[in-house]
Amino acid sequence: MSTEGVDEDCLGWAARDASGTLSAYKFSRRALGNDDVYVKITHCGVCYADVIWTKNTFGDSKYPLVPGHEIAGIVEKVGSNVHRFNVGDHVGVGTYVNSCRECEYCNDRQEAYCEKGFVNTFNAVDTDGTITKGGYSSYIVVHERYCFMIPKDYPLASAAPLLCAGLTVYTPMMRHKMNQPGKSLGVVGLGGLGHMAVKFGKAFGLNVTIFSSSIHKKEEALSLLGADKFVVSSDQEQMMALTKSLDFIIDTASGDHPFDPYMTLLKTSGVLVLVGFPSEVKFSPANLNLGMKSISGSITGGTKETQDMIDFCAANRIYPNIEVIPVQYANEALQRVINRDVKYRFVIDIENSLKT
Amino acid sequence: MSTEGVDEDCLGWAARDASGTLSAYKFSRRALGNDDVYVKITHCGVCYADVIWTKNTFGDSKYPLVPGHEIAGIVEKVGSNVHRFNVGDHVGVGTYVNSCRECEYCNDRQEAYCEKGFVNTFNAVDTDGTITKGGYSSYIVVHERYCFMIPKDYPLASAAPLLCAGLTVYTPMMRHKMNQPGKSLGVVGLGGLGHMAVKFGKAFGLNVTIFSSSIHKKEEALSLLGADKFVVSSDQEQMMALTKSLDFIIDTASGDHPFDPYMTLLKTSGVLVLVGFPSEVKFSPANLNLGMKSISGSITGGTKETQDMIDFCAANRIYPNIEVIPVQYANEALQRVINRDVKYRFVIDIENSLKT
Repeated sequence: MSTEGVDEDCLGWAARDASGTLSAYKFSRRALGNDDVYVKITHCGVCYADVIWTKNTFGDSKYPLVPGHEIAGIVEKVGSNVHRFNVGDHVGVGTYVNSCRECEYCNDRQEAYCEKGFVNTFNAVDTDGTITKGGYSSYIVVHERYCFMIPKDYPLASAAPLLCAGLTVYTPMMRHKMNQPGKSLGVVGLGGLGHMAVKFGKAFGLNVTIFSSSIHKKEEALSLLGADKFVVSSDQEQMMALTKSLDFIIDTASGDHPFDPYMTLLKTSGVLVLVGFPSEVKFSPANLNLGMKSISGSITGGTKETQDMIDFCAANRIYPNIEVIPVQYANEALQRVINRDVKYRFVIDIENSLKT
Repeated sequence: MSTEGVDEDCLGWAARDASGTLSAYKFSRRALGNDDVYVKITHCGVCYADVIWTKNTFGDSKYPLVPGHEIAGIVEKVGSNVHRFNVGDHVGVGTYVNSCRECEYCNDRQEAYCEKGFVNTFNAVDTDGTITKGGYSSYIVVHERYCFMIPKDYPLASAAPLLCAGLTVYTPMMRHKMNQPGKSLGVVGLGGLGHMAVKFGKAFGLNVTIFSSSIHKKEEALSLLGADKFVVSSDQEQMMALTKSLDFIIDTASGDHPFDPYMTLLKTSGVLVLVGFPSEVKFSPANLNLGMKSISGSITGGTKETQDMIDFCAANRIYPNIEVIPVQYANEALQRVINRDVKYRFVIDIENSLKT
């Protein structure tokens, strides 16, 4: 019998080339270190990032590539120095699994902005030289710093999307004080991130307007998600009626879209926060200058914010709307993510579908 | 003898058509109201706005058009309700001469963002229906709210450019906390606004780097203005060396220029404030998102900020670098402003050159 971490005892699904097609794959993970937590993965959310890197969009994909950075599971083992977690705890792992832990930003628990760069949960070179592999797999070994407690009464399937989609909108909403009751929030794009922004907005006591390219999402957006208003962004009359009416906009759209129509909706000193990655941002300076408005960017969040966000969701019974799928459906799910045909996040039931 | 304000007793220089050519022009101003101050104009700064509107760039110019919104002078009369000013006081008038005085922003003395729109000092329709006329003229009648005290020991010629150029950079620098000693500031564009940003930056104890398209300004920028560093923006090596080194950038350039090279120079959570009006703002979202950076806009400033700024300049002996000219030189001066051939602000000596 070989030593733990050396034998290929981790089951996963991996892309082998830029086709992005996933198939079963066995690999090894590192042996449990003193500060590590061994997490049996029960669920993993499907993020657009999984599409980007399985298909080598940026030309930096390292195959075989196991995607997944919205991980939820149960602690099976802990290293000798680990005090925050015990066997049996429900935990999550998000978009990164390492950082320098000594720079200004790490010290401030803003690891997403680590000066040496954080280590992505998959397709990154870890500090030991190995390539990180994500959550479409049976277990993960991770330094406890990058592991988060999920309350036992919060469903693990629901917890998974919090680790990327939830955090990505929660963090800038808190940073830009979008949690002031009574204020008005616009949400651009109604996917995994956007629908969480709506839920956070309502939990913060905001008046929430959704901007979407498709009228088809309207009824559900109002009834199921609880938004106050739904505007089809191509409807100029509806857009004009909202001129200078919003305190904040969170823009989750990664497709190319104009910014000027949204900037004109902001009140004086309003802020648009961009969390998507369109190919460019372009607008008229008048839409910035004449109302001392701002556009600000953000990615993921720090470890403190991650735990705060999970706790906030648990305390306020905020749950992502998910479609739970078996891992065998992953390829079709990725295609549906590309087609924006998902309400609002796929979560892979790793525990029950990923078997030898 | 006709009633005051009805006879054409105000001497000015006006453009008559889109050629923008200025020539002598006599007109009347309103009679002194109870809340008004009658200011004998001694000096008026030459701003790029004077070029824009004398030449009808936006198609909204109302001729004859008397430009000028950097006004300094001496109080000659005050209305019966005026308590802040006395005859003989040195005062300034800036870019606006009226606002609604009852909205949220006016109440906060942020009149530049008045909900009903402020009334520009020239080429605007005032609340009484008349067209405002600017400071290339012998006197102005203005509500005391839009009039600012200039300390007697601060030269009136130097005070004029503070009212637009100085205020436009001072206000966002204060709003975005660019007055924290030891931090690093980049200044893009070294004209009337940019050179004031350098002076404020040094007065705030910042490490100031100037970005300019022309190497010719280097020596003067370092020796005369006291900047710490001078970078030719087209020099990629110099630019690269400053990656992630700046806390703030104030971008005063109104010519079209790329934003990505500057965004990459900002540290994490850095802010670029735009006060110029290029034809568009365009950048890669990665340069915003990956470091939670912001781009923010601003125009002019409120009445409280204006007085604060003048007082700060007086207390810290901050003086714009000016070239004092007679009004007869105004046409050539406007052409030199277009050619960016000015160090760093023209100020018209109204008192000594504008005669019948």
